[in-house]
This record gives sequence, C-alpha cells and structure tokens, in this order.
Amino acid sequence: MPSARAYCAAILLVTLTAFSALAAPARTSTLAITGATIIDGTGKPPLSDGVLLIADGRITAIGSARDVTIPKGTERIDARGKYVIPGLMDANVHLMNVDLESLIKYEDRFHELVLEGAQLTLRSGLTTVFDTWGPRAATVQARNMINAHQAPGSRIYLAGNIIGFDGLFSPDFFADRAPFVSKAFVKRIEDTWVQGVGRDLMWLTEEEIRPVIRDYAKKDVDFLKYGAAGHHGFGIFATFSPGVQRAIVEEGHRAGKTVQVHTRSVENIETVITAGVDIITHGDISGPKPIPDKTIREIVERRIAVSVLPMTERRLSAAEKAKPNGDTAYRVAKTNRRNMIKAGVTLLLSTDAWLQDRALIEESPTREVDIIDPTWTLGEGHFNALLALEEESMAPMELLKAVTSNIARAYKVDADLGTLETGKIADLVILDRDPLQSARNYRAIYKVIKEGRPVDVEALPVAPLISKKPVRAEKSGS
Amino acid sequence: MPSARAYCAAILLVTLTAFSALAAPARTSTLAITGATIIDGTGKPPLSDGVLLIADGRITAIGSARDVTIPKGTERIDARGKYVIPGLMDANVHLMNVDLESLIKYEDRFHELVLEGAQLTLRSGLTTVFDTWGPRAATVQARNMINAHQAPGSRIYLAGNIIGFDGLFSPDFFADRAPFVSKAFVKRIEDTWVQGVGRDLMWLTEEEIRPVIRDYAKKDVDFLKYGAAGHHGFGIFATFSPGVQRAIVEEGHRAGKTVQVHTRSVENIETVITAGVDIITHGDISGPKPIPDKTIREIVERRIAVSVLPMTERRLSAAEKAKPNGDTAYRVAKTNRRNMIKAGVTLLLSTDAWLQDRALIEESPTREVDIIDPTWTLGEGHFNALLALEEESMAPMELLKAVTSNIARAYKVDADLGTLETGKIADLVILDRDPLQSARNYRAIYKVIKEGRPVDVEALPVAPLISKKPVRAEKSGS
Amino acid sequence: MPSARAYCAAILLVTLTAFSALAAPARTSTLAITGATIIDGTGKPPLSDGVLLIADGRITAIGSARDVTIPKGTERIDARGKYVIPGLMDANVHLMNVDLESLIKYEDRFHELVLEGAQLTLRSGLTTVFDTWGPRAATVQARNMINAHQAPGSRIYLAGNIIGFDGLFSPDFFADRAPFVSKAFVKRIEDTWVQGVGRDLMWLTEEEIRPVIRDYAKKDVDFLKYGAAGHHGFGIFATFSPGVQRAIVEEGHRAGKTVQVHTRSVENIETVITAGVDIITHGDISGPKPIPDKTIREIVERRIAVSVLPMTERRLSAAEKAKPNGDTAYRVAKTNRRNMIKAGVTLLLSTDAWLQDRALIEESPTREVDIIDPTWTLGEGHFNALLALEEESMAPMELLKAVTSNIARAYKVDADLGTLETGKIADLVILDRDPLQSARNYRAIYKVIKEGRPVDVEALPVAPLISKKPVRAEKSGS
Amino acid sequence: MPSARAYCAAILLVTLTAFSALAAPARTSTLAITGATIIDGTGKPPLSDGVLLIADGRITAIGSARDVTIPKGTERIDARGKYVIPGLMDANVHLMNVDLESLIKYEDRFHELVLEGAQLTLRSGLTTVFDTWGPRAATVQARNMINAHQAPGSRIYLAGNIIGFDGLFSPDFFADRAPFVSKAFVKRIEDTWVQGVGRDLMWLTEEEIRPVIRDYAKKDVDFLKYGAAGHHGFGIFATFSPGVQRAIVEEGHRAGKTVQVHTRSVENIETVITAGVDIITHGDISGPKPIPDKTIREIVERRIAVSVLPMTERRLSAAEKAKPNGDTAYRVAKTNRRNMIKAGVTLLLSTDAWLQDRALIEESPTREVDIIDPTWTLGEGHFNALLALEEESMAPMELLKAVTSNIARAYKVDADLGTLETGKIADLVILDRDPLQSARNYRAIYKVIKEGRPVDVEALPVAPLISKKPVRAEKSGS
Repeated sequence: MPSARAYCAAILLVTLTAFSALAAPARTSTLAITGATIIDGTGKPPLSDGVLLIADGRITAIGSARDVTIPKGTERIDARGKYVIPGLMDANVHLMNVDLESLIKYEDRFHELVLEGAQLTLRSGLTTVFDTWGPRAATVQARNMINAHQAPGSRIYLAGNIIGFDGLFSPDFFADRAPFVSKAFVKRIEDTWVQGVGRDLMWLTEEEIRPVIRDYAKKDVDFLKYGAAGHHGFGIFATFSPGVQRAIVEEGHRAGKTVQVHTRSVENIETVITAGVDIITHGDISGPKPIPDKTIREIVERRIAVSVLPMTERRLSAAEKAKPNGDTAYRVAKTNRRNMIKAGVTLLLSTDAWLQDRALIEESPTREVDIIDPTWTLGEGHFNALLALEEESMAPMELLKAVTSNIARAYKVDADLGTLETGKIADLVILDRDPLQSARNYRAIYKVIKEGRPVDVEALPVAPLISKKPVRAEKSGS
Repeated sequence: MPSARAYCAAILLVTLTAFSALAAPARTSTLAITGATIIDGTGKPPLSDGVLLIADGRITAIGSARDVTIPKGTERIDARGKYVIPGLMDANVHLMNVDLESLIKYEDRFHELVLEGAQLTLRSGLTTVFDTWGPRAATVQARNMINAHQAPGSRIYLAGNIIGFDGLFSPDFFADRAPFVSKAFVKRIEDTWVQGVGRDLMWLTEEEIRPVIRDYAKKDVDFLKYGAAGHHGFGIFATFSPGVQRAIVEEGHRAGKTVQVHTRSVENIETVITAGVDIITHGDISGPKPIPDKTIREIVERRIAVSVLPMTERRLSAAEKAKPNGDTAYRVAKTNRRNMIKAGVTLLLSTDAWLQDRALIEESPTREVDIIDPTWTLGEGHFNALLALEEESMAPMELLKAVTSNIARAYKVDADLGTLETGKIADLVILDRDPLQSARNYRAIYKVIKEGRPVDVEALPVAPLISKKPVRAEKSGS
Repeated sequence: MPSARAYCAAILLVTLTAFSALAAPARTSTLAITGATIIDGTGKPPLSDGVLLIADGRITAIGSARDVTIPKGTERIDARGKYVIPGLMDANVHLMNVDLESLIKYEDRFHELVLEGAQLTLRSGLTTVFDTWGPRAATVQARNMINAHQAPGSRIYLAGNIIGFDGLFSPDFFADRAPFVSKAFVKRIEDTWVQGVGRDLMWLTEEEIRPVIRDYAKKDVDFLKYGAAGHHGFGIFATFSPGVQRAIVEEGHRAGKTVQVHTRSVENIETVITAGVDIITHGDISGPKPIPDKTIREIVERRIAVSVLPMTERRLSAAEKAKPNGDTAYRVAKTNRRNMIKAGVTLLLSTDAWLQDRALIEESPTREVDIIDPTWTLGEGHFNALLALEEESMAPMELLKAVTSNIARAYKVDADLGTLETGKIADLVILDRDPLQSARNYRAIYKVIKEGRPVDVEALPVAPLISKKPVRAEKSGS
Repeated sequence: MPSARAYCAAILLVTLTAFSALAAPARTSTLAITGATIIDGTGKPPLSDGVLLIADGRITAIGSARDVTIPKGTERIDARGKYVIPGLMDANVHLMNVDLESLIKYEDRFHELVLEGAQLTLRSGLTTVFDTWGPRAATVQARNMINAHQAPGSRIYLAGNIIGFDGLFSPDFFADRAPFVSKAFVKRIEDTWVQGVGRDLMWLTEEEIRPVIRDYAKKDVDFLKYGAAGHHGFGIFATFSPGVQRAIVEEGHRAGKTVQVHTRSVENIETVITAGVDIITHGDISGPKPIPDKTIREIVERRIAVSVLPMTERRLSAAEKAKPNGDTAYRVAKTNRRNMIKAGVTLLLSTDAWLQDRALIEESPTREVDIIDPTWTLGEGHFNALLALEEESMAPMELLKAVTSNIARAYKVDADLGTLETGKIADLVILDRDPLQSARNYRAIYKVIKEGRPVDVEALPVAPLISKKPVRAEKSGS
C-alpha cells in the first residue's frame, strides 16, 4: 500500500505543475509598451508617449516614440493614456500566517503559505517585497520557487528571524498558546523561527556575539535585522548594548548584508544611529514622545533610511475614538513622518502586513476599526500607506520613490531594481490614471509586469489555503 | 489545475483500497479450529480437544473432536494446547483522539482517527467495542467502513454525544482552549460533538425533552447515553431531574435502544436506578462514599448492568503516593467493585480508554504513574482491568463473562455476539495459555478471529496518524 | 505596653456607646400618631383621620380619631395629610459586603459591615430584612446588637449559609481570587461562610443528610435555605435529589424553621414544589423558559410563597441594549411575575441586594446600566422593585402586602409583624404621599418608626466603613 | 460620637509611648565595656582586654585597660572573654511586607510594617540597614521615628523607588493581582511606590531625565538606585541607554547622593561601570554567564563597591536538586563571588531580605528549600550570607569589613559609622565567641548596643503585625 507521504508528494508535483504554468519565464524574447507616460522612479520628469522595450526580462530601451525603434516580431502593449511606473515594493512585510490553526494544519506546508502571501502582494503591484521576519527555511523555499519560475509571486528578500527574538511561542509573541499544544510541537516551531539567534544572544558580550552573527549570515538570508527593543509589553525597551549593536552591524556588513533594526523609542533610535545600521525599521514609531529634530537631522546626515508604517488620519481617528486612552504611538508616528518628510529623510514605504485569515478578521472584536484603511493587510496595506504619506505632505515624485527606488537603494538591490532604466529588470506597473495626480491612482492597476512578463493577476493567489473565507460542505449524517 | 480536494479524494480511494485488503470478508466458506480447549463464555465448563467449525462468518458447529465432522476442503487451524474464547469486548471506550493538534490537523479525517482506535483495540483481541462518547458522524463512518469490510477494526457500537453534555470546547471538557482558535472552528467542533443534545436540554421539562430524544434516537446511533451528573468540577452533581431521566429512558426504549447513564455519586446512582436504565456507566465510581449495600441489592434485583473501570492495586497505590491528598473516588471504587462482585451484580469490563497521542503521554507531568498498568490506553487498558477484577476476587469464569457475554447481553446484541454458540458470529480469540488459570493469560493471544477470518494483527493499525511516535525528517536549510 | 487588641476593645466600647444612643429603646411609654390615613397591610380599606396608639413598643389601639382616646402625657406625632403603613420588609437581602478588600481589611469587624447594611436598609423604611446568605456568626452578632438596642438597624432574620453551597473562595462564588491570598485566610473565610453545610452534603443520601440539617438548625439561625441549583456557570442545574430535598425540608420544619430554596430553572421549581418548601427564593427566575401555567397553579394550590426580584422595564431594556445576546433570564422573569400576579401567587418583594462598595461601582465596566433603577443596592433596590411590580400590573393593595404582610406570614413572624394591628410590634412608616396612588410614593418617607420609636434616619449609617466614597488625606511626603 | 479616626489616633499615641520606652535615648551619659577583645572593623589586629568608653552615644575612648581611664559613675558592662565588633550592616534590604493581605489590611500603617522589619534586623545585630526599594513615605516615617527615639529599630537609609521601575501592581512585580482589587486601591499603591520615577522614564532622553532625577533627589531619600535591567521575565535585559545612565548618576552625585544600580547580566554590569555608579546592587548576579576577569579588574580599578547575595552551598545544592533545570544564575553568582574575593573587589554583604509573613512561608510549595539557610529572611539572612562568604574563601577580617566598614564607606556614612573608633557613633555588638575563628560565631550575640545604649532584643519586634504566626481566637457562635 502506498504511503500517505507518497501521495502528498504526488499532489505537490501536480500543484507545482499548476504553479509553473502561471510563473513561466518569458517565452517571447521581446515586448514593447507604447504610448504611455513613463515615470521612471529616478525623479526625472515623466516622459509622454514613451516606449519601453523589454528583452529577456530586462529593459533594453526607454524613450520617446520617435527615439526608440521597435524590432519586428515584438509583442506590443498599447498603453496610450496610461502611466508606466517601476514595480512597487514594500520594505517590511511578513508573508507567513501565524495563527495557531494554520501552524498546526499546515506544518509541512509553510512555504505554500508564504507563496500565498507573495501572490497576494504581486497581484496588487508589488513586484518585490522584503520579508523582515518569518520562518527562514520555508521563506527561502518560496523565494527560490518564485525565482525559478516554479510559482508566481512577488520577488522575495528575507531576513529570517529578528536577531535577539525568541519564537512564536515565547513571551516575545504568543506564549499564552503554548500550554495547549504538545511540547514537541512548540519546540519544532521555536526551532523553525529562532534559527539559533534568539533571546540567548542577549547574554553575550560584544566579542561573543560576533561569531554567532557570522554563522547566521552564512545561512541563506538576504539581509539582517536585529531587535534593539523587545516586541511585547515590558520588553519594549532597549535590549542589546550599543557595543553589541555595533558588533552585529559590523559582522553583517562584512558578510555583505544590509542590516536593519527593530526600534520602539527615541532612545532606541538614537542608539542605533551610532551603531551604523542601514535601515531603521518602522523608525517612525518612537513611543509616546516624538523624535527630536536633532535626531532627525542626524538620520539625514548619516543617510540612514527609515521604513515607515503610514496610517491614514481616517483610520487613526477611528482607532482613537474606539479606545480613547490607548497607546499614542501611532499618533506620534504621524508627527514623526511629517517631520521626517520635511527634513528630507529617505523614507521607505512599508506595511508590516502579514498573511491574515479572513475568518479571524471577521471574528475580531476590533473588526470595525480593522476594516478602515487597513495597514496590515497584504496586498491592500501599501495603497493606504501611500494615501497616508500623501496626506502627510510628501511630494508626488517622492512618494513614488518611497515605494520603489528608495527601497531598492536602501537594500542595495538598485543595480537591478527600483527604477525604469536600461539594463534593469523589467518589473513595472501600468496604471490607468496618473499617480502624480493623486495617490489614489496607484490602485488603478492596468497591468503588472514582472521580469518582462505580464502577470495574470486574476489567477492569484493560485491555491489559497487561508486567504479566502473557507466554504465547507455540510457535514452529512450517515 | 485539479483541486486539492480532488487529490485528497484520490488518496482516500487508494487508502481505502489498502484498508480493504486487510478487512476483506471471508473468501473461503469454512474454517475449523481443532484441538483447543473451548471456553464458550456461557459459563459452561471448558471443552477439551474441541472443534469449532465456521462457515460464512458464523459458528456452524462446536463440540468435541469425535462429535463434529469437518467437511472436506475446510481450512484448519491446529490449536492443540491452546484456548479458544469469545472475542473480547470493552463496554466503554472512546476511539477518537481529542488533543487540539489532532482536531485541527485532521479535521476532515476524524473517521480515520476512529479507525486507528478501532484497529488498536482489535489487535489486542477486542472484536467489539462500545464507543460511549465521540464525534457521531465520523464514528458512524468508521463503523460502516468496518462493517462493510472496507477497513479492519473492532466492530463498533456507538452513542455519539452524551445527552446533556456540551462539546469539547465547553466547560464540560476543555473550555480553556477555545480562546486560541477561531470561533468558526470552535463552532464546527461543538456542532460535531453536540448533535443537538447538549446542555440546553437541562432547561427542558419532561414533556419537552421527549421529542428531542426521539429525534436523536432516529439519528444513526446504536444506543443512548445521558449524563445524570456533569463531567467536570462543580458540575459533577445531579443534572436531570428524576422525571426527565425517566422520560429519556422511556423514549430510548421506545426507539429500540439500550440506555445507559453517566453517574458520579451514590445519590446519582440511586436516582438512575428508578429511572429504568439498562447500564450504569462506570457505576463503581460513587465519589468519596461507597455505595450502600441496600443500593447494590437493588441493582441486582432490577438486573441493571454496571460497567466498571477496574484499576490494579499497584496503579492505585502509585497514584495515591504521588498525590497523597487527591481524590479518593478510585479507592472507593475498588471497594464498590469488591462489594458488587460479592453481591452478584452483572459487571461489564470497561476502560474509558481513548486514542492517545504517545508524544503527549511522554510529556505528561504524571507520566510516571501513567505508565503503571494503564487503564485509559486503547488496546492495553482491558488487560489491566482484567488483572484488577481478578485481584478483587472475581471468579475466573465470571471474569470471562464480564469481558464477553455480560456485555453482549447488557447491550442486547447477544443474539449474535458474546458467546461461542452455534449460529453466532464467529468472533473469537485463541490464547496460548489458560485464561481461567490467571487473568494474565488474556495477553497470550495466538490469533484473533473476527467474523470467521483471522486478523492480521501485525498490520494494525494500518495507517496510524498519531499512535506511533512521529518521526520527522530534518527540516533542511536551503 | 497595652496590646492593640485591648485598644480595639476600648474603641469598640466607645462605638457601642455611640450606637446605643441611636438604638435606645423607648424611653417614653406612649406615642400617638394622629390625623393620618392608616393603611394597615391586612388588605382592609384605608382609615382616614386615624389614630394609632403605641405603648412599650407595641400598638395598643388603632382607629378613627373619635374612637381612640389618647392618654394624657402621650407624645404625639401630627400626621395630618400623611399615610401610615406597616414597616417595609425585604424578603431576600445580603447585608454583608464581600469584596476582597473588605474581607481582608475588616476581617475582625464583619458584624460592623452587617450593621452598616442594616442601617442602610432601615433608613429607607425597611424595618425588617431577611438575610438569606451571609457570614452566620457576624450576622447573628449584628442581629443581637440591634435587638438589644446596642445599635440601630433593621430587624434581622438570617439563614447563614445556603445549605449545599461552599464559601466565597469556592467555585460557587469567587474561586479566582483565592490564589492571591494566604491559604490560612481562605480557610478562615470558608469556615466562616460554610458552617458545616457546604458542597460536601451533595454526596450524602437522604438518611445521612438528616442529622446534618438537625445540627445546623440548632445553630443560631432563624430560617433555612438550601440550594436546589448551583450558583455559578455550569453548576446551575439541579443539585440535591428530590428525596434529599424532602429530608432537608422535613428536618427544617421539625426544628421549627421555615425552609426556602434557591432555584434556577423550571425543572428546579417543579422539583422543589413537591419537596414542601415554604418559600421559593427568586422563584421568578426560571432560566430561558417561562414557568408553565400548570406549575404556577400548583404553587398557588400548595400556598407556597415566591420571593421575586422585580426589575423595571427601563432597566431591563437598558441591559438588553448593552448586551444584545446576553442571558434572557431576567426578561423571562418579568413574564413569570406577570403570570404569577394574574394567577394569584403570594409574592414577596425582594432585592438580593448587598452592601456595595461605592468606589467599586464607580469603576464597574457596566456602570452605565448599573445606575438605572438599581435592584441590588441596599436601601434603594426595594423602591425600584415596587415600581417594577406596579408596572407588571400588581394591584396597589397587593403591592403593599407584597412588601409587608405577605413576607411576615411566609416567614411565620406575622404574630408580631407585617400589619398595623393591636398587639403587634409598632414598626411603621409614615409617608407624605399615598402609596395606593403610585408606587413612587413609597419613597416619600416622612418618618420611620421601629418598635414605637422614631428612627433618626439622617444619622444612618452610623459609622460607615464602605458605603461612602472614601475620602483620603493626601499621603504627605516627609 | 467620636470618629474611628480619632480613636486610631489615640491608639497610635499609646503605641508610640510604648515604643518610646524601648527606643529612649541614653539616659546616662557614660558607659564602659571592659575586658573584651575589641575588633574595630578597620582591619587592625584585635585588641585584647580592651576598654571601650561611650558618652552621649559616641565612642569617647578605646584602648587597653591600662590606657583608658574610666570616669566615676560610669555604667559598666563586664565583657571578659567576649568580643566587641562594630554594629552589623546589611547593604540591601526591604523592610516592608508586600503581600496582598498586608497591603490591604495595613494600608494606613505601612510605617509600622517597616518598623517591624527594622526591629527584626536590630535584634540580630544589624544596627544599620540600607533599604533599597520600598514605600518611600512610610519608610521615611519609620526612619524618622527611629532616629527620634520614638521607636526602636535599626538605623535606616533608604532609596524609595528603584528609578525606572513601576509599582507593585505593574508587570515589574505582581500585575496578576491587580484585577481582584479596586482600581482606586491599585492607584494608591502604585503612587505610593512609584513616586514619579517609574517606567515612564524609559522614554526620556538624557536631557529630559536630568530634571526628573533632580526632583526625585530632593525628596527625602538617602541615596539613589536605578534599574539598568528589568526585574521580571523578559524585561530583565538592559533598559536605560548608557547616556541616560550617566545622566542619572551625575545628577545623583550633584545632589550629594550615592547612586547604585540594579543589574542582571554581564552586559548590564559592563555598561554601568562606565556610568560611574558607586555600588552595583547584587553585582554577583550576572545571568547564566560568569563575569569576565577583565570586567572584575575594571571594578577593582574604578573602586566600585559590589553588594552581593551570598548563598551557602548547602542551600544552593538543595535548590538545584529540587529544580534540576532551573535558573543557573545563583550557581554562577557563587563563582563570581569567589573570583571577586580573589581579585580584591570591595564586597558589601547584603540579603535582599524582606519582611515575610510566616504563615505564607509555611504554605509555600518550595518551603522545604526555603528553610535551608534562608537568605531572604530579615534578621536571619545575613548570618547565612556570612557563612557563604566564608566558604567562598573570604578572609575573616575581610568578612567583618564586608558586613560593617565596607558598607559604611560605600554609602559614604563612614564618618560616623562602620568602625569602632573614637568619635564615631557607638553602634556595636558584643559576641560570646570570636567571629574571626568562625563565621558561625556572629550568631553568638551577647548584647547589641546602638548609639551607646543596650538594646532590649527580647522585646523586639515590639508590636508585630505579621512576623509572628497569627493566633486567632475561635470565632464564637452566638
């Protein structure tokens, strides 16, 4: 009798075949997009009636209709009256779902959940996302499947664990759930997340932490992120000492990785600036006190990028109304973003969105606020973040950069991504309306093109496990 | 692309095919067991050098070698020096596993868990089990698959829900787990268990409850069980009033079902006696006070059967030593059983065993006591229960009846089951050693024969989901 | 150095002296109330321009001005235009406060808390209250002090513990608090409440419970109350078997006590009727289903009194609006009361009110509803209960009886209390407005007279520990 | 009627009078202790047959019998064969009790609890204690009463709150208790403890924290202590940034206070060294990793004192045996102390002992270990700490200094205290046996003399509220 495992393998094979059909690499060698206004993300003025020529997944020419010759046999997309922009990016997402039911039910299929997340993002124009915390191996598997065209999805760069944090069942996250499942399961999940760089590191001195970081950087991660503050409750204050932070950053840089840091307070931010990090993650969150101008100036001078979690006034007000004496950090963050925009900080649009189970959202006691301009919803949050930055007075061209080229540059992937320039990978979005007129127009997606191939967004997510409301057949009697 | 559901269906089909190979009905028409001492379970003295003849799954002849002619072409089992007894029965099991991880992971495969339980029992000689609480539809499905020879397993009779109890996530059982999973999941599980006969019934009067019982009896259940006491903590005292209890019993009887009742105290027991029940479930448990002689006499006079949960002195002492001021109910139960044996109550061996996840047992804080003569372990508990009854002075022949014919009669299935008599279904166990010499000898199973066919016990359980310690491949890096 | 205990004794002495001043027995031998309309509580029509003559605390004459001769030297109260009614009664109160802080802070002064409760009730016209659950010894002490004129307060009759319930720190009440205080304290409080008649009794048979009830009845309690249902959550269904209930009632009656019973469901109520109880406590509460007419008729026929917890529509609607899917028992209770009024059941007004800490009420999350026509507030609840019964169509004269003579008769204290008749104790209330015109007029208290002496209601409560919002001096620095 | 408050005032007055009798200042002007071996705590060799002369509470002469002339009329204590040493000190105690019952019961009498603690310490030879965390105002009140001879007790120096920690009902301590008491009570307790220097300070920058520290230092506290690490669970890692720590220390020094710091890890310790603190509180606790030699050397060089929590091997082994996989911090601390003794760090004996309710200790699940060489028991812990330091190879004379002069110097009170030298306050202990022979001999207390007056140790504690097992009279019936 064949084993269940063998059958699962068979299913997987079929599923992969199905994925591949949607993720296939360019079969034709050339594609031309014609007639559109091209806004290339470099900050240069828009180019009307432009032509963008693509071959083998890269941009081979870009210019006005008269300057660019379209080779014969080139497939054409007529984009008259439309707008071409670089593929969008989100500097901070978590593609995985972490609800207890999913963890148990899909323990052997985490990579499929990550793929589901990456398909939700791709369908809304995000051709590249940066996953700053998640299960390392499963995210690597999803990333590789996407890169190998075995499954569709946004291009993924990943950090794995946040250095210094324990796993899902630790007090850093959801310790209250642990007693209800087996210790063996808890251990597997902890190992899956922690990857050797958990809370234990907090006991290490500068010299002791260096080899640990070196080892972790050798694992298949694209960039590093560490926690300068805890994630929950009373642990939200400073964690690693300044010396240890410098050691982490140095070792990350030596290994050729960008290094970013989770912060929660003004104090945190001031400490990490001197540690030499590349990106301050949700650096607009500074607790109950706004970031001083002096500190903002220092961020500008040291050319540190700040990923932000913009929230619309509409949502913020609703949340404040629902909980009048709640945490003020998001209100303060709005002030911080305005100040940083004014001061010229390099901002990176981000959402901290994760793969959510819709059924759980429906059941949430805070549902009424949750559905107002949601931030933490994959494939939706970045549109609202764009609206928020616009209302915080970011200039239209800066807004485009915040969601494209700024991110590519901060993560040091700008040789290939982030702008529409000859030689770069042909990731782009065609919009029906002008994004420089209104941030709302980013939603007006006509086509998403990734590596030179149009994406069949209607087919995404391909085989969703949780992002659709589950429809169950009635349990029949007998 | 084919759906995952279609693939699961495909797997199921293959699995069923595999099951069927092991569960196939008698292909040959006749079988003869020769040379053994036959103890037929009726109380008659053993028959030496007996022959037992089986055709089409039923016993066609039984007698001494000289009296029974074995037709030509009959397959033979040479059982010289061995002992043939009726197939064993357990009057109270729960074949399902109810750990949170299993519930989530196998939500669509509960019937497979039930089958796994029924295979663990069959391999230890239990040809028939009575499942007194579990998910109704899944247990029905498993029962039907076994009856249709689509899967091997003990013959199952089932009650479904305990009338008056709410489900797994209610305070009757494990309410503390509910907050950590979705409300939708909780509701599905509750519905799966409760089946319309939960705690709400406690508000009903005698007249109001009758139609509810009638409706439930029409569902595909084999017998009824109701709760005369709660299951947990403060709810352990009386629940339904005597009048309502009588109504439940009457309606059950009208529908042709035996009716049993969950009790916890002397008071409970005295009340249910007058309600007319057929079986008092774990009627040896009476709280801190032993059952008065008068009450025991009444049980005898009214011919009510009592299923018991015998526990060896070894285990009981170990538990008492580990928790000196613990509940005394099990110690009192031992006294009750001795008194009931002396008074001639019809006892039914039972275990209340359920399908356990070995990994969780290993992790249990009470593991050291748990592994001493376990009672609640499917496929193991009944052997220890037999030892316990023996040490409580039950006569050897009575012991055999307690685990076979008494149970068949109490559940009114004795027309077909429970003894080795001509015309009955050929469920039997061949032992290497004499069970009348020592209760330990019930473990000396040479062969299990169900419906006239030898069971391949080594192959059971066929496709275990949880009863083996999970061996997981290393999560590879990438 | 003198011990703290000695000093406390000293304080107590002084306090008692102070109390005594207010609680002093009649110093003058006679009092005449003249000119009022007298409504004597027997159901007879009001007597205009009546004279009520009191001597040595009892009513010596009652009649029209021309029929009654007022002896010389008699003190007079001119009550022209006013209304004289019997002293009000509440059939179900709990004079004690049970908040954790009070229990700890006033552990040696529980009787003072009870006195505080009894003073809050007296000041609103309740000359007699029936305390159906509380710390026995402390309530006895308070009762005796009041009876001995050592402290002012409503006349108290008490049950002590509810037979069958465990104490404050048990699952019957507030088990969640126990882990935060010492086991020694928990034990003291449990012993204080349980008094030997707790949950353990549920294990007893009819014969076994009789001596326990006899012993308890010998303790200094005025009447008995037992639990036919639990108090909390899943324990709310039936507890004692019918036989045991009959035994409790019989032993109570043999000891000369009235017996009442805590019920929660139709089932409960039907069972207790046959047990022979005198009063069904909050017998208007029957869970989600109204009491059948047949059952109500049986209550009438057997002349069982029912104490009720009337709630105004205004409050009920507010509670329902605040919690749309909440418990429906109070809505059903309103229906039950209407039906019982129509059927002629002897109803006793009650409140289940207890001594509440105002600071905690202010902090309550349900405060907004709590302050609407409160029921459970000592000294306030009975006024709202009167309004509720009026809106449920109780006739004005019946209403007066429900809060006076019905209660006295049900508790068998009507030889002395409950009506204004010659020879009875002179407990009465003088109202500024006619109570037969509107239930609102019960609030229009002009004077409260207990045992023939006017009560100085402004001075009550005399030395409140918790019923006033605590005003604390600033903690000074140093 | 007089108010209860007035009566309490009356009691207090009487109690104070009683206290005063025991705490009275020197009535005679001179006292001579003769014949003893004097070990003065400076490190000088013992002086045999010495005379110590005291006048007006100070040492006026000290020398050999032939060198010191005893004035006429001098009261004498013949101490031949005995040993005179400076009054003992504990560098880290908490005189208050913090159990929920005490907090509620004695809310207006916290200073009495502190006095009770200070009397338990004084009776075991501790003439001075440093209270490093407690209710500021109550401790000030107790300190002042003792200094004004209104009550007996060890001389107290106090820190009030640990800067950066929230109060008793916060997650820093016992947040789980808060839901069971009133919000008003929680707030009062929080305010009592936090005193404006709680967790909120963690949000402040270097500049912002300075005025806060200045304000707090102006309150009546004797020294400052801040938290460089949290106290509970996940908050145990670094809290204030190095810059903020420096600011705290500087402002403390400017205000003339010594500054100490609560640490938990090697990382913490290394950071605080550079912050310039005077004392590292329980600086032997460094988590799971021992303090590096380099760090210890730096402590020596910078002349930072380290208060330690010595634990005997006997106790440590018992704890490890009871919980094999427990926290290793105390085992590591033992290694740290050995290393620091070897390296010549200035160690201060301390206990972290607090006023404990004996009833609660008796009930403790860890009682069996708790009673072995207890460390955290006021009046007992320091004796065991001395044994532990001895077994960790501290030289006898160093041991004496660790419990006397080292502490006085570290806290900068050595002008008056810590050694037996002419001009210093006459705090001393007379032992029956030589403390330099064995640390056990510190228990052999013959007399405790504070400010030149013998202490009546038998009378201490004077009016204990909780340190004796409560004996309660039977609750009488009625």
